[in-house]
Amino acid sequence: MTQFDVPNPAYEQAVRDSFGKQTFMDFLGAKLTAVAPGQVTIELPVTPNLLQQHGFVHAGATTAVVDSACGYATLSLLPPGSEVVTVEFKMNLLAPALGVKMIAHGRVVRPGRTLTVCQGELFGEDENGSRKLCAIMTATMIRR
Amino acid sequence: MTQFDVPNPAYEQAVRDSFGKQTFMDFLGAKLTAVAPGQVTIELPVTPNLLQQHGFVHAGATTAVVDSACGYATLSLLPPGSEVVTVEFKMNLLAPALGVKMIAHGRVVRPGRTLTVCQGELFGEDENGSRKLCAIMTATMIRR
Amino acid sequence: MTQFDVPNPAYEQAVRDSFGKQTFMDFLGAKLTAVAPGQVTIELPVTPNLLQQHGFVHAGATTAVVDSACGYATLSLLPPGSEVVTVEFKMNLLAPALGVKMIAHGRVVRPGRTLTVCQGELFGEDENGSRKLCAIMTATMIRR
Amino acid sequence: MTQFDVPNPAYEQAVRDSFGKQTFMDFLGAKLTAVAPGQVTIELPVTPNLLQQHGFVHAGATTAVVDSACGYATLSLLPPGSEVVTVEFKMNLLAPALGVKMIAHGRVVRPGRTLTVCQGELFGEDENGSRKLCAIMTATMIRR
Repeated sequence: MTQFDVPNPAYEQAVRDSFGKQTFMDFLGAKLTAVAPGQVTIELPVTPNLLQQHGFVHAGATTAVVDSACGYATLSLLPPGSEVVTVEFKMNLLAPALGVKMIAHGRVVRPGRTLTVCQGELFGEDENGSRKLCAIMTATMIRR
Repeated sequence: MTQFDVPNPAYEQAVRDSFGKQTFMDFLGAKLTAVAPGQVTIELPVTPNLLQQHGFVHAGATTAVVDSACGYATLSLLPPGSEVVTVEFKMNLLAPALGVKMIAHGRVVRPGRTLTVCQGELFGEDENGSRKLCAIMTATMIRR
Repeated sequence: MTQFDVPNPAYEQAVRDSFGKQTFMDFLGAKLTAVAPGQVTIELPVTPNLLQQHGFVHAGATTAVVDSACGYATLSLLPPGSEVVTVEFKMNLLAPALGVKMIAHGRVVRPGRTLTVCQGELFGEDENGSRKLCAIMTATMIRR
Repeated sequence: MTQFDVPNPAYEQAVRDSFGKQTFMDFLGAKLTAVAPGQVTIELPVTPNLLQQHGFVHAGATTAVVDSACGYATLSLLPPGSEVVTVEFKMNLLAPALGVKMIAHGRVVRPGRTLTVCQGELFGEDENGSRKLCAIMTATMIRR
């Protein structure tokens, strides 16, 4: 496990404050469930509002939570007062996004002063708590 | 402009029927505004629910409409009864997604029996109708 | 066609000088055939050294010329003395890379002070001069 | 560590035979150094032929070996007689590709009957055997 420098002792509060400003996370019903240096988890309970034509969770909804998880994994390693925006990401959809809950993990692969590269994963969890990997993301974030 | 074979004379109805099943499009407030062979446009009025921490439209919301536009551009070129799902996509965010309305265009670059490759664009339109390119997508779709 | 600012009047020389330092281009046999503001073309004659297991040009060789074309399209729009390196790219391989010559076009989609986003295309040209689109790239470049 | 089904008992020979047909690997000087079910390693000694304008290994050369590693990781899990071609890949260049040797690992993330998704890594190894992660790839492969 890579150890990262953590220049902001209040990194978790910085992440939570910024997440709280993302109205889209609240609109989707997404919750920020874990924040560690370079790693963030967001959970999205599946509701009938979030589906595509086959009843799977829409890739836009899953992308939203994985992108935010990667962005906040990045923010957790930046100095106080930093802002992060997404430069680009790629999602590969490995399996239908099915379950009672979607779980998005974002983690920093290479931190940088300007650009940070992250990898994200999206799991679908069923009613028994069993998880299946449904998508993977690679994302580039920039400090503003 | 590439001319494509259109094996489904009722391609527009096929697209509209499938779009109608995407509860997430309705939840976001997205509208299917144009359907042509290999090309689809979806519009998303910007509301306070769709934002990220700086007040731009969240990349998950913009990705949702560009992904759906690419998927339906693909479906418009497939035989009756076909289904389409996304294999992967990449978004590059070129400028903040700002405006009163987001406009997503998806078009087929290379149709195929199994895989179809599309390119998508996302424009932000301001209150004067002026448009700015905010993001580009490349997507791979598969017929199921 | 987008018009770009061209802060370096000697942009073509800057591109040709840097291209001349890429030993890999010479090793492959690639030639810089056109340089315009925000647009570069590189040609790669197909030789028996460049193939993958089915006799198509290897994706590493085609990626090399499209990546360089995008990098130099970026450099053509930067001030004198600038350097460019690739942040990331994505290639979609649309058709087998076949022909007597590969032609790579790179063009700037969105120039920036730090990051520039490009799109690239790779055509295979047969002995009659007929061209087929074989691959598309989206690339992010950074000024160093 | 994921365990995969291995339908071809002679998977290693299948990989080595196909690798032997890639003239481009021989031209670059790349060697197939490890083959396991769903995982392949290719090494590329750095020579003065492989460089870009700053003296780093050109992204086309590094992409070539990571793409081949991912393709052969895929082939190792397919039935006898199968062929694999690349649908698309994305490379993020994390650090300059420097060293005496480049080491490319490809591994299957999700095998499939038609499409297989892989992740790849590219390490630069210096004269002391110390390795640094220089690039990551996500790739989609298709069985032909």
